[in-house]
Amino acid sequence: MTPATVTFQSDARAVTLDAGQTLLDAAFAARVPLNSVCGGRGICQRCRVQVLAGPVHVEATGRLDGQVLACLTRPAGDVVVEVPEASRIEGEQILTGAERGLGPFLSIPEEAAAALPATAGLFVPSPLAFRLPLDLPPPTLHDNISDEQRLTRELRRRRNIRDVRIPIEVLRALPGVMRAGEWNVTAALARANGGYEVIDLAAGVTAPPACGVAIDVGTTTIVVHLLNLDAGTTLGAAAALNRQITFGEDVISRIIHAGEPEGLERLRAAVLDTVNLLIGGLAKDHGVARDQILGAVCAGNTTMLHLLLGFSPAEIRREPYIPVATTPLSYRAADVGLRIHPRALAAMMPGVSSYVGGDITADVLAAGMDGTEELSMLIDVGTNGETVVGNRDFLVCCACSAGPAFEGGGITWGMRAAKGAIQRVEIRPDGTPAWTVIGGGRPRGICGSGLVDLLAELLRAGVIDRAGRLAADGPGVRVGADGPEFVVVPAAKSAAGRDITLTAADIENLLRAKAAVYAGAALLARRLGLSIHEIRRIYVAGGFGTYLDIGKAIRIGLLPDVPPERVTFIGNGSVTGAKMALLSYEVWRRAAEVAQKMTYRELSTDTAFMEEYVSAMFLPHTDCARFPRVCAELGMQS
Amino acid sequence: MTPATVTFQSDARAVTLDAGQTLLDAAFAARVPLNSVCGGRGICQRCRVQVLAGPVHVEATGRLDGQVLACLTRPAGDVVVEVPEASRIEGEQILTGAERGLGPFLSIPEEAAAALPATAGLFVPSPLAFRLPLDLPPPTLHDNISDEQRLTRELRRRRNIRDVRIPIEVLRALPGVMRAGEWNVTAALARANGGYEVIDLAAGVTAPPACGVAIDVGTTTIVVHLLNLDAGTTLGAAAALNRQITFGEDVISRIIHAGEPEGLERLRAAVLDTVNLLIGGLAKDHGVARDQILGAVCAGNTTMLHLLLGFSPAEIRREPYIPVATTPLSYRAADVGLRIHPRALAAMMPGVSSYVGGDITADVLAAGMDGTEELSMLIDVGTNGETVVGNRDFLVCCACSAGPAFEGGGITWGMRAAKGAIQRVEIRPDGTPAWTVIGGGRPRGICGSGLVDLLAELLRAGVIDRAGRLAADGPGVRVGADGPEFVVVPAAKSAAGRDITLTAADIENLLRAKAAVYAGAALLARRLGLSIHEIRRIYVAGGFGTYLDIGKAIRIGLLPDVPPERVTFIGNGSVTGAKMALLSYEVWRRAAEVAQKMTYRELSTDTAFMEEYVSAMFLPHTDCARFPRVCAELGMQS
Repeated sequence: MTPATVTFQSDARAVTLDAGQTLLDAAFAARVPLNSVCGGRGICQRCRVQVLAGPVHVEATGRLDGQVLACLTRPAGDVVVEVPEASRIEGEQILTGAERGLGPFLSIPEEAAAALPATAGLFVPSPLAFRLPLDLPPPTLHDNISDEQRLTRELRRRRNIRDVRIPIEVLRALPGVMRAGEWNVTAALARANGGYEVIDLAAGVTAPPACGVAIDVGTTTIVVHLLNLDAGTTLGAAAALNRQITFGEDVISRIIHAGEPEGLERLRAAVLDTVNLLIGGLAKDHGVARDQILGAVCAGNTTMLHLLLGFSPAEIRREPYIPVATTPLSYRAADVGLRIHPRALAAMMPGVSSYVGGDITADVLAAGMDGTEELSMLIDVGTNGETVVGNRDFLVCCACSAGPAFEGGGITWGMRAAKGAIQRVEIRPDGTPAWTVIGGGRPRGICGSGLVDLLAELLRAGVIDRAGRLAADGPGVRVGADGPEFVVVPAAKSAAGRDITLTAADIENLLRAKAAVYAGAALLARRLGLSIHEIRRIYVAGGFGTYLDIGKAIRIGLLPDVPPERVTFIGNGSVTGAKMALLSYEVWRRAAEVAQKMTYRELSTDTAFMEEYVSAMFLPHTDCARFPRVCAELGMQS
Repeated sequence: MTPATVTFQSDARAVTLDAGQTLLDAAFAARVPLNSVCGGRGICQRCRVQVLAGPVHVEATGRLDGQVLACLTRPAGDVVVEVPEASRIEGEQILTGAERGLGPFLSIPEEAAAALPATAGLFVPSPLAFRLPLDLPPPTLHDNISDEQRLTRELRRRRNIRDVRIPIEVLRALPGVMRAGEWNVTAALARANGGYEVIDLAAGVTAPPACGVAIDVGTTTIVVHLLNLDAGTTLGAAAALNRQITFGEDVISRIIHAGEPEGLERLRAAVLDTVNLLIGGLAKDHGVARDQILGAVCAGNTTMLHLLLGFSPAEIRREPYIPVATTPLSYRAADVGLRIHPRALAAMMPGVSSYVGGDITADVLAAGMDGTEELSMLIDVGTNGETVVGNRDFLVCCACSAGPAFEGGGITWGMRAAKGAIQRVEIRPDGTPAWTVIGGGRPRGICGSGLVDLLAELLRAGVIDRAGRLAADGPGVRVGADGPEFVVVPAAKSAAGRDITLTAADIENLLRAKAAVYAGAALLARRLGLSIHEIRRIYVAGGFGTYLDIGKAIRIGLLPDVPPERVTFIGNGSVTGAKMALLSYEVWRRAAEVAQKMTYRELSTDTAFMEEYVSAMFLPHTDCARFPRVCAELGMQS
């Protein structure tokens, strides 16, 4: 079989495939945002495409309504393909946090800003990697120190930069560069391991700005922000499915796969592919050369960072749950495999334990909860649900497996917060739902915030009861192939031309997820001897996109029943925290302090956890005393 | 031309050559110690071999008395070669400093030992690289820190080791190694850049000792000592001609060659070849695996260290004489190209300037002159003659080109201090010379100390006059092909079966060399306003081997006329200093202090230099007031 070229018509992109590769592989390589959540196993049926020309082999279950599933279709020659609107992720519009108006050094939540020293203004710009133009005095017989000392002396004089390491490759180029630039040079520096490293040296004053990338390595979604480190601005953001999803949807299945022969290398290659394609795309779109990208800060859960670095995650799931490393590691990009400047800084956000990773440290930084006296709680609603309680004096965290329901996983019409997703739902007095779609147009599915709204509204309208059971005679309720379901969007109004529904199984999955998150938070507070009233502020992080109706999240019992004004939604805290650290050495140092200060409370071995979890499987909860406002509003009693 | 195999009969070694390579290349590759001092250009005629079988191409001037010059002979098929005794370097017996009885931590000159803190005993064993067996507590649910923290915590607890960097490759292996060893591991560590780096980690307690190499990268000769870093003992030493000699005999011609296309890379490859072959040979001979060698300290002049590191030396010879770097650089062995453990420490002895390199810093450390109040002077008699004056408060140095005469270069029968070299000479009352040969047997040539003796004895016996002219009627004097010459050893008693002579041209070369060395030392003292009587001790370093008759070195005016008991011969101070630094972090730190403290005095621009030099072209000197004892002894007057 000779290599085949796949052309994506509307996207005007073409790639050549190796034998055995699918149209889904082609879309990924061509950076065409074709949807897929099952990892190319023909299950999710979201990667439907139209083959306009050329021969293809399609597996038995790969043909649907005149379209084919890209993951089950292999070209048998050159083909031309069209990706319909309904099958597009619209990757550039995945909610990446960039929408939060991240201006120059003003990009952080107010709370985080407040945690910075007052004397420092809103944000101290001290990026982990930067360029410094230097006007060196030319050598004379009376000032004939070495080229290397001339450079380090100037760094000391100009910026009091000491403890500078210069890689051998840079020293080899030093004499040529200094003389080519007639003693005007631009040094690219990174802060690493307590000192500075000279990443590169260029002749003259180089005009293009120093850039960096903040990377949220999620189990499901990877988000990359490209930053101008000089200006402190976000140039762009992009997100894509973590290609590792082919090897399993959750952390545990990835760990199992890593134990197979070559498994770890395959997983590492998959995440690096995803990250590097996102970086490459952003760099291209914003006219940034890869060598201009001088630093990367990566945040993610402990397993994700292990797989990125090629560390075995095997012991993470074996008692006593030992990670290889969670400290703030700083390597060169080439050592890690990031395709930016080979000597660029590749820094890993420090984590706490096997189940509380650098993403949570980043959340804490983004919320600024380590900087205030006020007692606060952070709840990260992700595949793994994490809760942190504390203030500037202490931080305690726990983790519990919540599943991917609020990221759209395991929900029939679930999807990530991207264009076409229903993000808000109301049940009108006549019992019919009204919805808001991200980016407008016909809905393609429902994202996390839409699911929260939907559940809350169905409860309020009495379409579901406290146990989440659909009322057989409720408006919009019918019995589908898999039992009772609620029709959210009729076929005529949906992008796919099919009914968008919420099934009884979907509701069950959502209840499990919200119960796990709440149980973790509640038990942690209980074990710390705190009542919810003593917690002055609750931060919510997660892949909900820009929007989360706090009141509705409380109504379904995902969040504790506190006055909604005490709850702040911080979005993707992982990428925000990574970005803050990349832009400020002070924040990076705080990251290490936060991770070190934070203590991990193992709740999986706490016998009370299952009790909390089971009690939370109701809406909002079995115990109305815990949710007095919600129960009063809905006229419920324990 | 197909590859040919060259077999060295007595050595029982064989190598396969590429087209165009010579028998000298073959000897080098096979580690057969075939002599050669001209770099394979058919000039020195020391690489004579016997072709026992097989076809060869010999260049026109390559045939001599039934033998061929290996450097001018290329095999035209498989050949068998015999290297006669007279053509052997006896590399393992080159005087490498190992003979100075370097016992466990007792290997340093008394003066250097005296410079160490009294509380530290004679020598504090704190090698730059070492192994540490660790008995880690196995993780439990109550002690579930990461593998990396378990390692760093134990290093901190056991040895107060902080600021530890762990390369990504070591972290990748960490979980497997710790568990394979059932929490008994052996860490290999190096001290670099103000902290520690974990070079490697092995399961269990590994028995073989940590080893290291001290390397003197000389312009002419490279000396390597292999050390057991645990015991502080020298396992062995080896020396070889620096293969760069093919590209020129002195530093200046090497710098010129480095400016040609690929020149720098060729020179770097040549020195690395030499060093790696020496290391490989030593490792093999002493049953040490390359991966067991965890550290290297390299000393050499600034140009030599530049070429080793791949730094352009171009600016070293251009006003204002700027080196790329002279600070104490620490890299990984693989970055430098040393074939030891790839992550082993490769540390460069710091230097002062373009013309005062790390070899002089090493000399100062070996002499211990930076640690005492006593004012002393160090004279390094090498191709470049360097002088240092100072004590614990100040150090001033100068350099002047002396040529390779005292290393045997440019002298008809000159050779390095190796087996077969005449190292002592006396002229008996009957006018015939008596000599001592290193290793016994028939002499093959004369080494530096023999040349000093010879000159001093010829002067005393009146065979040469104060200008170095041979008395036409002196005993043993005859007129040879190139003018007057003195027969040191008649053909019947020499290894080569030919007369060993000292020609008028040889004497001229020796006078130039000794005049340059003395002029530098004298002018430096003069510029510092010091008389020679104020200098309490003179240290002499250089490739003289184990022996130098101080009285005779004074008699010819190589050294100032001080009481001989004030002069200490320290041998190859470069390799001794490198070894001391490798064995002791305190010494390594002192190296940086010495290099920083030492100021360089440029004498080449001092108009008085030529005057000093010309005055010193006599024996002992034009000015008898400078050499009162010698002149009195010899009945001379100014």
